[in-house]
Amino acid sequence: MKPEDLKAVRAFVKECLDGRHTELDALDDKPSDVYERFRETGLANWWLPEEFGGRGLTLEDSVEIVNEIAYGDAGAAFTLFISVLGTSMVQLYGSDELKARYLEPMAARGSFCATLGSEREAGSELGRIGTVVRTEGDELVVTGEKFFSTNTDFADFLIVVARSAEDSEAYHAVLIPRDTPGVEIVKRWDVIGLRASHTYQVALNDCRVPAGNRLDGSGLRLLEIGLNASRILIAATAIGIARRVRDHCMTYARTKPLRDGVLMDNPVFAQRLGQMEMWIDVMKSHCLRAARDYDTVMADPSAPALFHRQGTLKSALTAKMFCGQAGWEVASVGSEMFGGLGYTDDLPIGKLLRDVRYVSVVEGGDDVLRDLLYSRYVIPVPRRS
Amino acid sequence: MKPEDLKAVRAFVKECLDGRHTELDALDDKPSDVYERFRETGLANWWLPEEFGGRGLTLEDSVEIVNEIAYGDAGAAFTLFISVLGTSMVQLYGSDELKARYLEPMAARGSFCATLGSEREAGSELGRIGTVVRTEGDELVVTGEKFFSTNTDFADFLIVVARSAEDSEAYHAVLIPRDTPGVEIVKRWDVIGLRASHTYQVALNDCRVPAGNRLDGSGLRLLEIGLNASRILIAATAIGIARRVRDHCMTYARTKPLRDGVLMDNPVFAQRLGQMEMWIDVMKSHCLRAARDYDTVMADPSAPALFHRQGTLKSALTAKMFCGQAGWEVASVGSEMFGGLGYTDDLPIGKLLRDVRYVSVVEGGDDVLRDLLYSRYVIPVPRRS
Amino acid sequence: MKPEDLKAVRAFVKECLDGRHTELDALDDKPSDVYERFRETGLANWWLPEEFGGRGLTLEDSVEIVNEIAYGDAGAAFTLFISVLGTSMVQLYGSDELKARYLEPMAARGSFCATLGSEREAGSELGRIGTVVRTEGDELVVTGEKFFSTNTDFADFLIVVARSAEDSEAYHAVLIPRDTPGVEIVKRWDVIGLRASHTYQVALNDCRVPAGNRLDGSGLRLLEIGLNASRILIAATAIGIARRVRDHCMTYARTKPLRDGVLMDNPVFAQRLGQMEMWIDVMKSHCLRAARDYDTVMADPSAPALFHRQGTLKSALTAKMFCGQAGWEVASVGSEMFGGLGYTDDLPIGKLLRDVRYVSVVEGGDDVLRDLLYSRYVIPVPRRS
Amino acid sequence: MKPEDLKAVRAFVKECLDGRHTELDALDDKPSDVYERFRETGLANWWLPEEFGGRGLTLEDSVEIVNEIAYGDAGAAFTLFISVLGTSMVQLYGSDELKARYLEPMAARGSFCATLGSEREAGSELGRIGTVVRTEGDELVVTGEKFFSTNTDFADFLIVVARSAEDSEAYHAVLIPRDTPGVEIVKRWDVIGLRASHTYQVALNDCRVPAGNRLDGSGLRLLEIGLNASRILIAATAIGIARRVRDHCMTYARTKPLRDGVLMDNPVFAQRLGQMEMWIDVMKSHCLRAARDYDTVMADPSAPALFHRQGTLKSALTAKMFCGQAGWEVASVGSEMFGGLGYTDDLPIGKLLRDVRYVSVVEGGDDVLRDLLYSRYVIPVPRRS
Repeated sequence: MKPEDLKAVRAFVKECLDGRHTELDALDDKPSDVYERFRETGLANWWLPEEFGGRGLTLEDSVEIVNEIAYGDAGAAFTLFISVLGTSMVQLYGSDELKARYLEPMAARGSFCATLGSEREAGSELGRIGTVVRTEGDELVVTGEKFFSTNTDFADFLIVVARSAEDSEAYHAVLIPRDTPGVEIVKRWDVIGLRASHTYQVALNDCRVPAGNRLDGSGLRLLEIGLNASRILIAATAIGIARRVRDHCMTYARTKPLRDGVLMDNPVFAQRLGQMEMWIDVMKSHCLRAARDYDTVMADPSAPALFHRQGTLKSALTAKMFCGQAGWEVASVGSEMFGGLGYTDDLPIGKLLRDVRYVSVVEGGDDVLRDLLYSRYVIPVPRRS
Repeated sequence: MKPEDLKAVRAFVKECLDGRHTELDALDDKPSDVYERFRETGLANWWLPEEFGGRGLTLEDSVEIVNEIAYGDAGAAFTLFISVLGTSMVQLYGSDELKARYLEPMAARGSFCATLGSEREAGSELGRIGTVVRTEGDELVVTGEKFFSTNTDFADFLIVVARSAEDSEAYHAVLIPRDTPGVEIVKRWDVIGLRASHTYQVALNDCRVPAGNRLDGSGLRLLEIGLNASRILIAATAIGIARRVRDHCMTYARTKPLRDGVLMDNPVFAQRLGQMEMWIDVMKSHCLRAARDYDTVMADPSAPALFHRQGTLKSALTAKMFCGQAGWEVASVGSEMFGGLGYTDDLPIGKLLRDVRYVSVVEGGDDVLRDLLYSRYVIPVPRRS
Repeated sequence: MKPEDLKAVRAFVKECLDGRHTELDALDDKPSDVYERFRETGLANWWLPEEFGGRGLTLEDSVEIVNEIAYGDAGAAFTLFISVLGTSMVQLYGSDELKARYLEPMAARGSFCATLGSEREAGSELGRIGTVVRTEGDELVVTGEKFFSTNTDFADFLIVVARSAEDSEAYHAVLIPRDTPGVEIVKRWDVIGLRASHTYQVALNDCRVPAGNRLDGSGLRLLEIGLNASRILIAATAIGIARRVRDHCMTYARTKPLRDGVLMDNPVFAQRLGQMEMWIDVMKSHCLRAARDYDTVMADPSAPALFHRQGTLKSALTAKMFCGQAGWEVASVGSEMFGGLGYTDDLPIGKLLRDVRYVSVVEGGDDVLRDLLYSRYVIPVPRRS
Repeated sequence: MKPEDLKAVRAFVKECLDGRHTELDALDDKPSDVYERFRETGLANWWLPEEFGGRGLTLEDSVEIVNEIAYGDAGAAFTLFISVLGTSMVQLYGSDELKARYLEPMAARGSFCATLGSEREAGSELGRIGTVVRTEGDELVVTGEKFFSTNTDFADFLIVVARSAEDSEAYHAVLIPRDTPGVEIVKRWDVIGLRASHTYQVALNDCRVPAGNRLDGSGLRLLEIGLNASRILIAATAIGIARRVRDHCMTYARTKPLRDGVLMDNPVFAQRLGQMEMWIDVMKSHCLRAARDYDTVMADPSAPALFHRQGTLKSALTAKMFCGQAGWEVASVGSEMFGGLGYTDDLPIGKLLRDVRYVSVVEGGDDVLRDLLYSRYVIPVPRRS
């Protein structure tokens, strides 16, 4: 990443997100114009490989970028990076034709894709997926209902994980263009935070696509692989939020009278902020390391096979878990530092608290992740840290 | 308290609050009709002494009542009990005439009063109060601006803490009828939770009242004394909220499929809920004990003098601190138990999380209370627990 | 309890325990002479009913007494109260003859009894108990090995929980005099704290007692009932330890130079101590309430039946859980307040930290208790707090 | 570092430390023979530069090495790496002659040095140092008493921070050979953990050394710089201890019967261990990053000037803070996982808990470090993470 890129991101945050927290928190029907504005930086979908006309930035770069955007607004950051979940699955396991047809436009236009995994009865247990894909001639027909999926309404295409009608033990991942007949937005969710993002309940009614739209490999495994990048970037949003909490505290403390001075000079305040800074510093170290773990695999010519063998990266799990917990800690403490004012919408701390909560909730709650971490990386002795 | 009273409260909660969390969370301009409905139970301002036509219930009873109402909605509970802060000051330190004139109507009509202590520059440090009361003949004239005060707009009267114009070291507590010329509602605060309550910024422009409207004693000390009851009842709302969180978890877990059974049978879920129940059980023990401490003083014929000597009750401090912390813990854990659904407004967990946060914020943040507890009850060796 | 009693306990603590922490921490072979000294107060086994020559103090009194002794040394406190586990089982479910023969001497001589429940393979799961009791004529013969039992070596008698040889689903509780042939002390455990107490591994080799030595009812249920009193008193030791930690901190802070003053004047120190005081205050409220719950049942003429129906009291569970957690919190924070000195044996904080750890470990770890709490008091809706 | 090096360290741990926890915990008078055995690996003082005959390993390598040794015994690890505090000061700020004379033998013989900063009245506030160095001709004479210093008795030399007799605002760091007349070991401290290390109270009675033994620069600043390496390695010991705790849990859980299976299959256990693994993984990421920060400066030709400007590295502070907290969390949870057995010396968990406590205590408690972090890295806006 060139230094200008990060500068461009910071400029975008300053111009388009700063001071707009009420608006970005408003659950508007339409995606905010900020996404259009971000496109103008030339960094939209920054991680798409150069061979498809993208910027080819690494996940380590992405952590820096997401950290900066989330400092402005975590919902905006989520909208802007979550397509990586779908694109990385296509990039690794799609046919050359699929990649050309679907990734190139995303690079060129800065558009979005969506990934549809979980269902009402299949949240942490994806084996319960009820959406079915059946083969009809050289076409695939997908039917079912997906509970939570972000960006779907305005996405170019959807990656849908579905059970095979032919083999109930098999799961496929199928690329369905958004404009395919039968793709129906059931509703947009009213979420408690991250409201600049748009998450939908979606029905798939006999959606018909060419057989070649199926990605190569087990749909569940592919989803697990795709989640590596997105979980690390979700973790990175917690850094941005925590930094914003800290900076709000410092700004407030600089002028808030306390005894003979201001809050900033108070030793108890210093303790709280010192502890916050520790969390932030450690979150950053760990997200960057997780991203390097990911980049190392991605840089390998046999990345698809490597990832297929490994599935969930350990550090992707620990990054999301840790940053969710540390971010919550920072925001909880932060929300006590403004007296009664912190309980009003005059200050954005309430929004930051609601925003950061998502880190521990989406793409696997901590209970689910701890369980996965235990079975994959603690029971097998050589995989322990 | 007769068993029927608690039954009446529970019936009120069931009929008027249950299932209305979206509405009660809506920051409506006008107080909800639920307050009118509560009056019908005959329990409005239940703590007012029988001599003034009240029900004369103890603070121990009040903890039970508030616990029940807060189970329905903490904002409604807050609105319904917070008048105790002002009435207890009048009851203890007002003249017989003041008591007759102002407490009797509150008992008869179930109306409200408000207490105005904190200011923009005087939150935790009330010594900074800038509102001034000056004597003009046999009248008092009060001028200043108060930052946060609940119920003021629709209150019968306001208890205002102000600095004496004649002696800048002295603070008075003055009863100002709501309809006194010069009482101006500057704005209603948009609060992040507890939205069924109404908290205002209020300007007092040369508000003129008879000299007899001054309560007897230092205004700061009187405020401290009044806060004993309200802090204990604020603590009690955390019990109600925590119980609601627990019951939502249990209701959800009863049918949520998990592996071969339902979430309710899951050992990890059992751990979380067992720990929640522990917090709830301990919160209740402690609030009841704090209330008994208060009732013991109040039952003493020399209660005004006793309270004047003691000021802040230790258990009132520890109850608010502890329940704020325990309630936050319960709600934080609760907010992770519903998967993605817990991040939407389909479930009320987001509201409960926002609601419970106020316990650690209003009427003294934990930092302020810890400091007070330390100087009053740890440094003096015989006052340690 | 007369005020003199508590005074006598405090005098005992001052004379016999204060300043002897190294000695009491030394894992001596023989019980310390402090137990002899405690007898001189006339308060040994203070809870034994007056009808057996005891002092007949309530469990609420016991919480106060144990709190005081544990302030001096938690291991001494544990030794002095843990007999209540066995005596309460005898008192509730033993024949009149058993009570007369075994409780009266304990009241008269201030001697000890022991309860032997857990085994190597039956810690949290008592259903795994392998010790067997078989009937031979009008005698019972007990054989097996018990893992942890306190006071056994110098006890008057042992209450042993064993599986029936005649019915493998049935468990009995049998009183075995200490001098019964076949009672063998395998070893004393080297424990990491609470070292003034003596806990043993014990083998029972065909120990033969009259059939009347069997208590009435299921051995497992009786054990559960006996644990009510002991768990509450274990919880109460955490109060004493926490108060001692606090007082050490205050003593140190009074003279420790810091900047221009002493540590005691430091706002950060004030925060830590204020939080400690909160924990202590709440622990005390809750232990006293749990004790009152127990005393209420015990005061009922049909206490044996009531307890049989109820088994584990809810507040006994939550008291031990909460005080174990709060005590650990206090001691953890305390151990960071003395700089490097706190890491040496020059200060007793290391011992206090090790001592308090037992609260969360003995008589059911928190995981076990949370599970019990959940199944008994959360799942059944009317039993929720 | 060559892979063989880490293998050699692991072999050393296996052969010399494993299974000897009782012995290493015994507060023996003399340093254990394990130090002699470590020398045989050729890795003693592995960080000393190649130009002085050392192995020249980086601090990143050191984190790995210390992690491994601390897995065996943290006290042994501390003894083996703590000399880095003194040697790095000599390496950066000593004359060429000093370096040759004192670092070369340490590389050749694997011997030790000690650093003497803190005093009884100067723990967190080094400005209170009372030890004085005065100039007499071309000699320096040092007099004073130092409270805590590790390895001193068997060190080659001592680095002593003392106040200048000539300028009470100035502090010097002076190298004093161990065999200098006047160096007196007052006592060895009985520490509560880390007992394989030896920490002493030391008196310096008119210790006379050549003027060239003074290091270049302010003694306080030099000490701060030296602490960078040692704090990072102290943090790294927490990783080793936490890994050991985890592995003890897993070993125990593999055979401990629970319900129909073993503890290892229990979902609640899985949660605890998953969370532990998260802490371990994050600790490691952060220690390695802190070490790289340090190595980057050290690799710069103007390292002495760079460090002089920067003083305390941010990540060195956050690493020690974080690993102390995370390590304590892991050990606290670990100590509850073995039932009653975990409260005995049959299992090493009690020792591990005592050992890990030192991380948050030595070389600055968390309160001190948070304060430093705040003033150096939060108040100055550009230095925030």
